[in-house]
Amino acid sequence: MLFTGILPGLTADDSDQFESALKKFVDARELPLYKMMAYHLGWIDQNGEPEPVVMQDRSHGHLVLAAAKAAGGDNGSSMPYAVAVELLYNFLLVHEDVQNANTERNNRPTIWWSWGPAQAINAGDGIHAMARVSIFDQRNASGPASDPRSISLALESLDTATLEVCEGEYLDISYQERAAVSVDEIVTVARKHGALFGVAARLGGIAAGAGDSVLEALYKFGNAVGTAQSLNIDLKALWPDPGSERNEVQRGRLQSKKKSLATAHAIENGTPTTRRRLGEIFMKRVLDPADLDEVTSILSETESKTFAEEKVEGLIAEAISELESTSFSAEHQSSLAESARLIVSSN
Amino acid sequence: MLFTGILPGLTADDSDQFESALKKFVDARELPLYKMMAYHLGWIDQNGEPEPVVMQDRSHGHLVLAAAKAAGGDNGSSMPYAVAVELLYNFLLVHEDVQNANTERNNRPTIWWSWGPAQAINAGDGIHAMARVSIFDQRNASGPASDPRSISLALESLDTATLEVCEGEYLDISYQERAAVSVDEIVTVARKHGALFGVAARLGGIAAGAGDSVLEALYKFGNAVGTAQSLNIDLKALWPDPGSERNEVQRGRLQSKKKSLATAHAIENGTPTTRRRLGEIFMKRVLDPADLDEVTSILSETESKTFAEEKVEGLIAEAISELESTSFSAEHQSSLAESARLIVSSN
Repeated sequence: MLFTGILPGLTADDSDQFESALKKFVDARELPLYKMMAYHLGWIDQNGEPEPVVMQDRSHGHLVLAAAKAAGGDNGSSMPYAVAVELLYNFLLVHEDVQNANTERNNRPTIWWSWGPAQAINAGDGIHAMARVSIFDQRNASGPASDPRSISLALESLDTATLEVCEGEYLDISYQERAAVSVDEIVTVARKHGALFGVAARLGGIAAGAGDSVLEALYKFGNAVGTAQSLNIDLKALWPDPGSERNEVQRGRLQSKKKSLATAHAIENGTPTTRRRLGEIFMKRVLDPADLDEVTSILSETESKTFAEEKVEGLIAEAISELESTSFSAEHQSSLAESARLIVSSN
Repeated sequence: MLFTGILPGLTADDSDQFESALKKFVDARELPLYKMMAYHLGWIDQNGEPEPVVMQDRSHGHLVLAAAKAAGGDNGSSMPYAVAVELLYNFLLVHEDVQNANTERNNRPTIWWSWGPAQAINAGDGIHAMARVSIFDQRNASGPASDPRSISLALESLDTATLEVCEGEYLDISYQERAAVSVDEIVTVARKHGALFGVAARLGGIAAGAGDSVLEALYKFGNAVGTAQSLNIDLKALWPDPGSERNEVQRGRLQSKKKSLATAHAIENGTPTTRRRLGEIFMKRVLDPADLDEVTSILSETESKTFAEEKVEGLIAEAISELESTSFSAEHQSSLAESARLIVSSN
């Protein structure tokens, strides 16, 4: 499961403020398109009736708020950015559910499964546009956040990050049909997906009026966290935590033959026999559970699981070392470091 | 066929400058994701080899340049906006091709047909993000266009227009499964799709540093043109020009049972028998050519074709009357009026 709690460094009140801001922004719009978005975000059911509150992953929005606090800002200035990044993340999820044919997310039917792929593509496009509209609210923010140059910088950072994610997604999809994908290629894709947490942390810094070196450290911190999370999602899909089963999103990734760091390592380092066995499995049109068991057993033999786990740990260390280059208080550094571990490990 | 020439008021040199700017912007990026975009825009084939130049519809980008000229601006200031609006239009086309399962556009296989729906959704998302990245080039533009407040206004206009298009698309898709769709509902959808030409004309005005009343007149002009074009696309899908056949995109709209102004008029104004016959046809899972012939013959009986044609003419007149509220030269007014007719009628 993705992290669904409150990030360290934030209070329950911060989390409530964020959820209200996000909800207010979506609810301000009347048309049925926005009901579909509210459904995806977990507030109403398919008929528009209120849902019992089940906290979803809001770590992208929370990271904006936490980074802003660490850099000396407050929620007043960082809230529109937090809403923007959270919406950006959710637009990508809505499209990913169509792309990987996921029927469920957060234990509820996905938008495409309930309303069809055409509506889901459109809903995602709408959320993508709304992510940016939120930023224009920044003109009414307090402090340095309302400076037009900051807003322009934030918008550009957001679009650049989105493009990076799309570049990564292109590669990720194209690797589905290839057996030989290298460790470097997998890390490149994960780095690109990491752009989203990178921009989250950076936008927190922009809201707080931080200087270039802090913005860069925050980006690198978030990027390392996002990269590690992306690699760890694949690890947990192959080897779920004891007592938990693969969820729909994890099964979707495996069955659509998305490559992971562990499989890339085994292909690079395995014996010819190992490679041939993996190749035969990946040649199949669709992978069944027995195939997955064979893959995980091969990857354990080649110590590819250990290799991938060490890479994830290395990225967490990289994220934390970026914090040390800033003048954030020890308390903030430790909250962010703990956030990094939680975001990465709760997948 | 959509208009594929040079809009009145622009020279061949303007059109070349625009095509170069668009191409340069996409070509500056190296990854294969951008090759897919270049393919969609008509410059290369599926293998990345240069294609013989076949001019595609560039009326959105051209309208930005033409509106800027009319409002006293020049290409130097309006070019990044023209690139942005053209990319926005093309991101919507890439997604529409997936949504309506169009296999061809501009007589070439669509992205989803060549690379699969997952890549097409992602390519569209990338073009959407790029549309905005283009606007950041505006910071280096000449004159009033480089003012941060203008840029922020332009970005907000672009996102608001995108949201309107998504709102319209939601309704359009949801009407597919309903028989009774009113004339007002169809016009609302068309108005929302018209937001794209509206924002094109408005961005031309912003680039030229025009005041609020001119910006509003330009938006209304473009919106009326876009609305008329959208209604006319449906008319031409039902009744293609003499000697021309329905293209793939037109067939896609009809077969997916998108409703048109003419069908809405017939449902509102037809006899009970007419309504029942139309209802029976729309109840079918998929419409075949004989069904379409029956629909067109019913719509001629109820004079719904004439009704829709008159509505389109009325919108062109509405667009032209907006120009009269400006102080644009007679020459510019007449070029824009002619552009309006060309954009609407060449569908």
